[in-house]
Amino acid sequence: MNSFGRVFRITIFGESHGFVVGINIDGCPAGIPLTVDDFTNDLSRRRAGKEGTTPRVEDDIPELVSGWFNGYTTGAPLTIFFNNKDIRSGDYANLKDTPRPGHADFVARQKFNGFNDYRGGGHFSGRLTLALVAAGVVAKKIIPKISINALLIEAGGNTNIAEAVSRAREAGDSIGGMVECRADFIPVGYGEPFFDSVESVISHLAFSIPAIKGIEFGSGFSAARMTGLQHNDPIINELGRTATANAGGITGGITNGNELVFRVAVKPASSIPKLQQTFSFSTHTVEELKIEGRHDVCIALRVPVILEAITAIVLADFMLVSGKEYKNKRIRPTETMR
Amino acid sequence: MNSFGRVFRITIFGESHGFVVGINIDGCPAGIPLTVDDFTNDLSRRRAGKEGTTPRVEDDIPELVSGWFNGYTTGAPLTIFFNNKDIRSGDYANLKDTPRPGHADFVARQKFNGFNDYRGGGHFSGRLTLALVAAGVVAKKIIPKISINALLIEAGGNTNIAEAVSRAREAGDSIGGMVECRADFIPVGYGEPFFDSVESVISHLAFSIPAIKGIEFGSGFSAARMTGLQHNDPIINELGRTATANAGGITGGITNGNELVFRVAVKPASSIPKLQQTFSFSTHTVEELKIEGRHDVCIALRVPVILEAITAIVLADFMLVSGKEYKNKRIRPTETMR
Amino acid sequence: MNSFGRVFRITIFGESHGFVVGINIDGCPAGIPLTVDDFTNDLSRRRAGKEGTTPRVEDDIPELVSGWFNGYTTGAPLTIFFNNKDIRSGDYANLKDTPRPGHADFVARQKFNGFNDYRGGGHFSGRLTLALVAAGVVAKKIIPKISINALLIEAGGNTNIAEAVSRAREAGDSIGGMVECRADFIPVGYGEPFFDSVESVISHLAFSIPAIKGIEFGSGFSAARMTGLQHNDPIINELGRTATANAGGITGGITNGNELVFRVAVKPASSIPKLQQTFSFSTHTVEELKIEGRHDVCIALRVPVILEAITAIVLADFMLVSGKEYKNKRIRPTETMR
Amino acid sequence: MNSFGRVFRITIFGESHGFVVGINIDGCPAGIPLTVDDFTNDLSRRRAGKEGTTPRVEDDIPELVSGWFNGYTTGAPLTIFFNNKDIRSGDYANLKDTPRPGHADFVARQKFNGFNDYRGGGHFSGRLTLALVAAGVVAKKIIPKISINALLIEAGGNTNIAEAVSRAREAGDSIGGMVECRADFIPVGYGEPFFDSVESVISHLAFSIPAIKGIEFGSGFSAARMTGLQHNDPIINELGRTATANAGGITGGITNGNELVFRVAVKPASSIPKLQQTFSFSTHTVEELKIEGRHDVCIALRVPVILEAITAIVLADFMLVSGKEYKNKRIRPTETMR
Repeated sequence: MNSFGRVFRITIFGESHGFVVGINIDGCPAGIPLTVDDFTNDLSRRRAGKEGTTPRVEDDIPELVSGWFNGYTTGAPLTIFFNNKDIRSGDYANLKDTPRPGHADFVARQKFNGFNDYRGGGHFSGRLTLALVAAGVVAKKIIPKISINALLIEAGGNTNIAEAVSRAREAGDSIGGMVECRADFIPVGYGEPFFDSVESVISHLAFSIPAIKGIEFGSGFSAARMTGLQHNDPIINELGRTATANAGGITGGITNGNELVFRVAVKPASSIPKLQQTFSFSTHTVEELKIEGRHDVCIALRVPVILEAITAIVLADFMLVSGKEYKNKRIRPTETMR
Repeated sequence: MNSFGRVFRITIFGESHGFVVGINIDGCPAGIPLTVDDFTNDLSRRRAGKEGTTPRVEDDIPELVSGWFNGYTTGAPLTIFFNNKDIRSGDYANLKDTPRPGHADFVARQKFNGFNDYRGGGHFSGRLTLALVAAGVVAKKIIPKISINALLIEAGGNTNIAEAVSRAREAGDSIGGMVECRADFIPVGYGEPFFDSVESVISHLAFSIPAIKGIEFGSGFSAARMTGLQHNDPIINELGRTATANAGGITGGITNGNELVFRVAVKPASSIPKLQQTFSFSTHTVEELKIEGRHDVCIALRVPVILEAITAIVLADFMLVSGKEYKNKRIRPTETMR
Repeated sequence: MNSFGRVFRITIFGESHGFVVGINIDGCPAGIPLTVDDFTNDLSRRRAGKEGTTPRVEDDIPELVSGWFNGYTTGAPLTIFFNNKDIRSGDYANLKDTPRPGHADFVARQKFNGFNDYRGGGHFSGRLTLALVAAGVVAKKIIPKISINALLIEAGGNTNIAEAVSRAREAGDSIGGMVECRADFIPVGYGEPFFDSVESVISHLAFSIPAIKGIEFGSGFSAARMTGLQHNDPIINELGRTATANAGGITGGITNGNELVFRVAVKPASSIPKLQQTFSFSTHTVEELKIEGRHDVCIALRVPVILEAITAIVLADFMLVSGKEYKNKRIRPTETMR
Repeated sequence: MNSFGRVFRITIFGESHGFVVGINIDGCPAGIPLTVDDFTNDLSRRRAGKEGTTPRVEDDIPELVSGWFNGYTTGAPLTIFFNNKDIRSGDYANLKDTPRPGHADFVARQKFNGFNDYRGGGHFSGRLTLALVAAGVVAKKIIPKISINALLIEAGGNTNIAEAVSRAREAGDSIGGMVECRADFIPVGYGEPFFDSVESVISHLAFSIPAIKGIEFGSGFSAARMTGLQHNDPIINELGRTATANAGGITGGITNGNELVFRVAVKPASSIPKLQQTFSFSTHTVEELKIEGRHDVCIALRVPVILEAITAIVLADFMLVSGKEYKNKRIRPTETMR
């Protein structure tokens, strides 16, 4: 499905080389002040043009075509478009029948019986993350007290990121990276047993971002090598603050009041200048493929702002869902509660 | 939410020390032959009693209380119960006001204002995975051509698992582990852009399993350190078979016809015999907590069959959803398709 | 799907002559006081034994098997069972291959390829409304300030209901009826454009009740014969109170602060003692069918409490969803708002 | 929510006087041939300009901005826009603080704290049905073997519709109407117990159409006055064909192979030239309101094509969901089945 969320519910659409990329947000509360300028910072963090990212440059101006009136959200579904302009579809002509290794070309062709828009990856393109970032800008406004920050902490296994990117570019290759996201000041109690643990919902959206192949919360994979005594975080006050932070801010799938921490593994971009082998549906043989077009050397460079966006989307939805609490909220009588 | 799935849709309920643990499966096709014996193997793989798992032993006999008639599923919602019998709730009396580190006690108390059933973790208990395994048994019958196998490949950082477990038990501690799941003979095309990538849906369910803190597909976190040329899997025939297997059977979020491979990190069990520090809501100070009750030394031992179950549930749902294809299926005309 | 609702979400299961009829409520807030006695009144209103309803008598004692602890809901999914006891399935043996006119027998057989539990209508039975009434009891507790009352206003076209029922019973026939439901003190603003109008959601659930074949809100079908001037309700104060009540408490799909009024048409029970013609799958000819078993003369007698239940379920869900409002609620600045 | 459907899932957005009205269709199969011309007929049936409908005339040209490539649907979400052009928002200036009786103005203001786009009813406008009709055009292509026809059978209580409309126009008033929809050649078995009966799903969407206040299937409200013997339709062959048609093609909530028949009551348009009383939020008194703008005398004139659209949407979804059937479909063994 192209929709996600329970109350703050996003629906994404568009293609890399089609007319638009867009997102519709249902359940966005009325009265949130919103201007085109609000999007500038996050969109520019995602945008191309820097060392290591594709030279395709779009101006990426959001159009608020529904659910917005006189500077505020109206409560009706908010729709945001981005027109596609800087398109050179000719670059992709040879890819129609020769699926790029590591890319969605082959599966898209099979799943949709050859009717998919293959230009630039079509609906599978990383360009759709533009819409996620836009939704993230709105989501961040709904949870103003929560801070969210993501950072590329490693590229190609190297913490000297600029150097690693340069080296890969010179080699006509691409590199992967690791991005860490931290969010603080989240109330205790977000997340739902059994199937909507915070890890479940964040990972669901995170794996929607093209190129993500792993995610871990808190100590993550290191936890598999720890003992219970090492891993358990002692609770030190009634707010649930813990002395250590192995849980990454989530216990039993529910936010526990400590900083949320998770990391994702970003694979290297699939489209590289170097020759690669693939099966050609024209000649029905394995051939050498030369990929044209403009592509990122290190897509992980773009991921931090996208990861912030999906985190904000998830937390905004949990916040709105948690608002559903029983109005005449009762606290369990003292004799039981104390 | 306690429901998951689009067509094969599961709803889970119950508590560790309540009357039952159960699962309801909506959208289960009619005519699947099903007997109580069909559950024996997977349930016994999950059940306790082995070295390293809790001495609480339930007979775990599934009762098929709805949606089943004369040996077959009927097409109406299938409900499966397990009665709880071997309960010693007294063991948990001291935990009501002293939340165990690493466990859901604190968040459950805060989220539900003290009304949660705290005995044995209540609805957060690992005992609910019993219901997942039962649903997995049914799901496996819907996708008989797909093989699914999960294995504990490491415990406490050690591949000699029996030894690692013994050592942890003697130390009055617990250990984590790493479980790998492989599934083969999956058709090309399962998974949906944009938000229901196969990684998204599997990780959503995987993180519902208590104690999972990380997941990676194919090369996973190693991919972050690779170059594109190293990571891209060359496509070698028209079925999409690849020469290498870094993608773990998924490209662009869609199954690509190769073996599905993923790994999860299981944290060490939170409940350990050793003394731990936690905040007491009785005395309003940090105290030393002694956990009674019967607990697993290495919960990762139980995870393989649970991981198989959630994989089967996800694949059965994708299979049933993919059945939705356009009846008069058209293939794009040759001139375009070739 | 056997589930309904966004936050207060019910999942129904069971069969007329199976082991249980049950309902699972996800999203039920923690801390609602609940005892078995709370169900007595509504269940007895629905129960059989009165003139005009089937002599099958079940004790209908609800078992609260999950999500309930020490007299309160826990916030975990609440599951309520009813065991089936007074079963005479032998009565139905001849119906397996001779579908009763007006009943689900034929469609169930075709839809589920003959695997359906045909005894007593199986999952299609009116007995499942027992579970709806139980969920309604819980829902009513969530919206204590709203009053809901439904009444059978006509049976067999007659307002002298007792007489109409007697006459039908003597004739070996059954009769339909009309039920009106009124709910007052509903806040302005429940309901969601575009697809979750209050009429949409109530009618969705109302048509789940077996035998309902029509629904109308406010003036309903009479509105089709009115002029705008006759139908429009003048607004007479700032609370939205109207001078007339043609809208039935809903404008633009949203509750408008006036009393909610709707009526449903209940068809006569399909199972009647009189001989009827139907197709036999045994003899492959049209035959005369004699229906055994115990059946209602006027099922509309049972509908009022069921209609109240579905109304309460819908309103409780809207109440919980509306709780999702933007925390720092802003009111549009005066110059715009006034 | 602004989304509806399980597999063929529509998301609607836009406002009467905003930039666009649009619809997004997720789950639309790949390979459906589609051109702008395909929309012409149904859109022109809905469009204004005829006697009895508003003189506002939009060209209503659909733009296929995503999910469409080279004349076919691609399998990615299909998005269709309509730009709003013929807008005279000034007409609505006096309505901001004086809610029109019978219209959504008051509830929208209260629900969205005054931030709603009040121009022309905003998101509540009948103009959004344009998007429904467009989705209906696509849906009809998915179920080519099913015929769907809706007809205005009565206006203002009169079957001489043209005359009734003229008279109402001269009187400066509006009139309601009754629309009947018939669909034939629907397979047996569409619809799902318990909550997705065909009546449930059709009525859910039907009540999303502004101005619908009642719906009845088959004999509908007449059934309430019939006896079982009168109402039950004798089954006369193995395809389920019945001798009479009181059920309207649906038994037990499931299509039974006979013609689907239902009727809706359309209330008279709320906006009328005649003076009406309403509460003014400017003066805080009840005032006489003069409605400017261009409005329909009989909105029921537009409803037939909209009703066909929602019927096609529902049936296309059921068709795609029913495609989910168990691949190795089993038929119950003869000894049990006969």
